[in-house]
Amino acid sequence: MRRTAKRDFPVSDVRRFLEPGPIVLVSSAWKGERIVMTMGWHTVMEFVPSLVGCVISSANHSFDLIRRSKACVINLPTADMAATVVKIGNTSGRSTDKFAEFGLTAEPADEVGAPLIAECYASFECRLHDARMIERYNFFVFEVVKAHVAATPKYPKTIHYRGDGTFMVSGENTTHWRRLFRPGML
Amino acid sequence: MRRTAKRDFPVSDVRRFLEPGPIVLVSSAWKGERIVMTMGWHTVMEFVPSLVGCVISSANHSFDLIRRSKACVINLPTADMAATVVKIGNTSGRSTDKFAEFGLTAEPADEVGAPLIAECYASFECRLHDARMIERYNFFVFEVVKAHVAATPKYPKTIHYRGDGTFMVSGENTTHWRRLFRPGML
Repeated sequence: MRRTAKRDFPVSDVRRFLEPGPIVLVSSAWKGERIVMTMGWHTVMEFVPSLVGCVISSANHSFDLIRRSKACVINLPTADMAATVVKIGNTSGRSTDKFAEFGLTAEPADEVGAPLIAECYASFECRLHDARMIERYNFFVFEVVKAHVAATPKYPKTIHYRGDGTFMVSGENTTHWRRLFRPGML
Repeated sequence: MRRTAKRDFPVSDVRRFLEPGPIVLVSSAWKGERIVMTMGWHTVMEFVPSLVGCVISSANHSFDLIRRSKACVINLPTADMAATVVKIGNTSGRSTDKFAEFGLTAEPADEVGAPLIAECYASFECRLHDARMIERYNFFVFEVVKAHVAATPKYPKTIHYRGDGTFMVSGENTTHWRRLFRPGML
């Protein structure tokens, strides 16, 4: 897997990548320990502040690291990383270093202690914005405080999970219906 | 647009259609009034009960109908319905009958007062499960209580919104990486 050069991206526009529903890799760190998990249950919740809601099972060790550090990085892997994504999803609990185990490069983030994953197309640094739904639903509301996005391609080829071992790979991107939108409804 | 024949589908498996992040049409009804809106901010939250979290802006008239009726139907449109989906997304506020306006067929649901949309690939009848996040985030937690899904194709061609008038159309479905999953992690 190649590392991807990235540039800063407006945090209020992360819907471009998250709203279509891709599987993501969530990295986190706490007291010298770092970890990465696969996650598919997330939704954009607001533009400003840039909010993303995510279900992170309390069965995952990441749950503890994220709750304690009050932060994570949501990384967007591309289809060529699918085998690695699945292998990460297979594992649970502690290990020495999942980054080394899965051949991922951890890079320091700007705003949070959790690492960026250099091989991913994009990385969104997140701070915990609302913890009130964690106890009941394992639901974390994060604010994206910094976004790093690859300069090219404009739209990455992503994988979208359907359960039962089946992925939908993202298809064509089109502005075909753009002329039908009223300007305020884009 | 053709009406799609549907069969009952296990509510705990609706992730197959919602987790990849498609744009959906949300129908609702209250005191003789019915409405439909376009929605893209949603996530699966639990298998049993089958929970789906959705952001529905309080600027939409649907917000009131759903909050009062404590129910809605999440309908899954296919790519051939994209122009209609955009036109529905353009409108806000009241109108006489959005179903007639957009050429959609309202069919009675089994468990809720909100209508199914016959032209959609699937319809998920939802009851409001948790209203505690509505005030703060316009975030509704629904329980899917009944699912109607077209018999064919197994996976529909759906549209996934990126903002700015751009859609990603769902691509290939593959079990290519299925062999890498541990059985408990499917």
